[in-house]
Amino acid sequence: MRATVLNCSLKSSDQPSNTQQLTEVVLEAMRDDGVEITVFRIADMSVPPGVETDLGEGDEWPQIHESLLKSEILVIATPTWLGHPSSLAHRVLERMDAMISETDSADRPVAYNRTAGVVVTGNEDGAHHVISEINGALVDIGYTIGPQSWTYWNRGPGPGPSYSETTEGHDWSHSTGRAMAQNLVGVARALQAKPLAPPPS
Amino acid sequence: MRATVLNCSLKSSDQPSNTQQLTEVVLEAMRDDGVEITVFRIADMSVPPGVETDLGEGDEWPQIHESLLKSEILVIATPTWLGHPSSLAHRVLERMDAMISETDSADRPVAYNRTAGVVVTGNEDGAHHVISEINGALVDIGYTIGPQSWTYWNRGPGPGPSYSETTEGHDWSHSTGRAMAQNLVGVARALQAKPLAPPPS
Amino acid sequence: MRATVLNCSLKSSDQPSNTQQLTEVVLEAMRDDGVEITVFRIADMSVPPGVETDLGEGDEWPQIHESLLKSEILVIATPTWLGHPSSLAHRVLERMDAMISETDSADRPVAYNRTAGVVVTGNEDGAHHVISEINGALVDIGYTIGPQSWTYWNRGPGPGPSYSETTEGHDWSHSTGRAMAQNLVGVARALQAKPLAPPPS
Amino acid sequence: MRATVLNCSLKSSDQPSNTQQLTEVVLEAMRDDGVEITVFRIADMSVPPGVETDLGEGDEWPQIHESLLKSEILVIATPTWLGHPSSLAHRVLERMDAMISETDSADRPVAYNRTAGVVVTGNEDGAHHVISEINGALVDIGYTIGPQSWTYWNRGPGPGPSYSETTEGHDWSHSTGRAMAQNLVGVARALQAKPLAPPPS
Repeated sequence: MRATVLNCSLKSSDQPSNTQQLTEVVLEAMRDDGVEITVFRIADMSVPPGVETDLGEGDEWPQIHESLLKSEILVIATPTWLGHPSSLAHRVLERMDAMISETDSADRPVAYNRTAGVVVTGNEDGAHHVISEINGALVDIGYTIGPQSWTYWNRGPGPGPSYSETTEGHDWSHSTGRAMAQNLVGVARALQAKPLAPPPS
Repeated sequence: MRATVLNCSLKSSDQPSNTQQLTEVVLEAMRDDGVEITVFRIADMSVPPGVETDLGEGDEWPQIHESLLKSEILVIATPTWLGHPSSLAHRVLERMDAMISETDSADRPVAYNRTAGVVVTGNEDGAHHVISEINGALVDIGYTIGPQSWTYWNRGPGPGPSYSETTEGHDWSHSTGRAMAQNLVGVARALQAKPLAPPPS
Repeated sequence: MRATVLNCSLKSSDQPSNTQQLTEVVLEAMRDDGVEITVFRIADMSVPPGVETDLGEGDEWPQIHESLLKSEILVIATPTWLGHPSSLAHRVLERMDAMISETDSADRPVAYNRTAGVVVTGNEDGAHHVISEINGALVDIGYTIGPQSWTYWNRGPGPGPSYSETTEGHDWSHSTGRAMAQNLVGVARALQAKPLAPPPS
Repeated sequence: MRATVLNCSLKSSDQPSNTQQLTEVVLEAMRDDGVEITVFRIADMSVPPGVETDLGEGDEWPQIHESLLKSEILVIATPTWLGHPSSLAHRVLERMDAMISETDSADRPVAYNRTAGVVVTGNEDGAHHVISEINGALVDIGYTIGPQSWTYWNRGPGPGPSYSETTEGHDWSHSTGRAMAQNLVGVARALQAKPLAPPPS
């Protein structure tokens, strides 16, 4: 079983990502369950705006797209800015819009029989909404969203510390993250055991 | 296999519901697939505000709650007002909040291994958001949301006709509704074949 | 200058409301500025579902509607459930939908030249979204929303204490609430000094 | 009086923008009212991700930031993808996050006493939500949002034509756009006549 992780931190990998740190808890639990994981740090890559799978020279989205098609599981990890997913999280969803009309050999949208979850950090309130926004797009694209397939951390009210600056509340976020990992793997296995049929024509 | 439908129209059943009319397309497809269906018209019932399963004398929520626990499938059907789900849709989600901490004999949240979808009508834009809001709550409660498990109808821009006042766009909404029905049944069967385990403690 | 406050707590006034407690900070600052305030506790009243101003016998909305029309300022105060405004907050917005087509003597929608703000409490993350949802509806109805005209309190991540069970973070919420009060009064005075014209026909 | 327009189309200006076409109706009405307008086409510019005003060499945000500070009015214009504002709309809001802590000579957040509106096009449902998301961020940043200060166009249900491919519904979107223009100018003048004070310390 494979998982692709899209880390949508605004910071490139020469800087530490709070979002990555929380995501690692989820990934460790999935690795323990035998899942092979590929992480993309979107801020390191050239992913231009658009709604097609390949925008031509210099576009690094096609390699992410290929990884998505090999993975039963997707994790979108994002910070919270102004209560919203990061612009890079929106960028990857926009690029995934093309997948709505891409079909597999059985004429199913390519995201069918795959599952997804969301990890959110922030120095402000907003995680529930960030999760709903991302899941809303993923359900449109064709992913299945399992129960409580998310974890988050923030410490309000108002602007507060970042995840890595305190340990307050980490226990809850980690335990929720391990449940998320188990549900991602569980839903992926259920869909493998009994795959969804192509939509009726 | 059983489905519970919560029609959250603001109108009681002495008036026709546009939302019910579109929902019937989904229900017909599920019935053809052998699903037994129970519909509650929330505006006809006494469902007081609160976040507990039984608010005492006169509260008719407990019978809906019982139906939810017997059903592998849930459909929430709602009109759009000011771009939002109806207040009755929010009311039923609020009452379902108690289900987060109710567990089955295997110590799973009671909504685990159940799936849900959304039907939306409106005389205005807003359906995508209505669907995301409802799904966000349902994922928190423990439901699994299958791919494209929704249908909607509205005809913009601006205030326009109601669903029953025109046939424009009905074909798309019906065909999407039949795909929704198939995916609800498909996800429910996958979760029956390979149920999710209780969350790790 | 007058303000109407709609407290959309799920609890009726025989129980203490966390939302009311935080709202009082805003109201005290407005009273100090000479604003006369009327508070409605929605859970105490009969406000049936619908999108008309008067639903007939037993409907207590008309007295709230009358208060709205006498007030330059509106405050909607709500708890957070499942990351959303309460069902009662949605109920009052739905009833206010009728105000979109009610006009004053100068043919302006009745909410023109009035301003509004939001107070949110919760034992969970969600305030930014709750504020956006409510403001989205109020802007449609015709209210003007001033800068940072909101305050909130919650203490995450995950389910935590209620506002009245701790003093953590209260300082931020109170100071933000006093700024909200000042901005509500400031915007109301600006609109009094130079009222908006009727929309072009 | 000045207005800055941020066109967040995914397409650069070598391709026609549906969003720009609808926005022109609003701009024409503002020009008739004496407003001087500057339009930025974000897809033509280098606006890297981040939450600071100047990210150094090659960052073209500072010139947009300068224009925002000279303008009493801001218009954010965006297409709808997956029911959301474009990733470029999220990008500009993220960059504006820095403005929350930038203050003018009177110690007011720099966005105070400025007003903003939103123009949305799409080949799918979603405009109300796109408007709420953008307004939510702008209110946090310190803008004042006037009544019905938006217009949109889409033609559902389901994926449909683009704005420029039909004239259906254009009248409503144009008339709403002209009301938006009048309200933007009206609110800007009210805030000029009676500016908001700095927040209480």
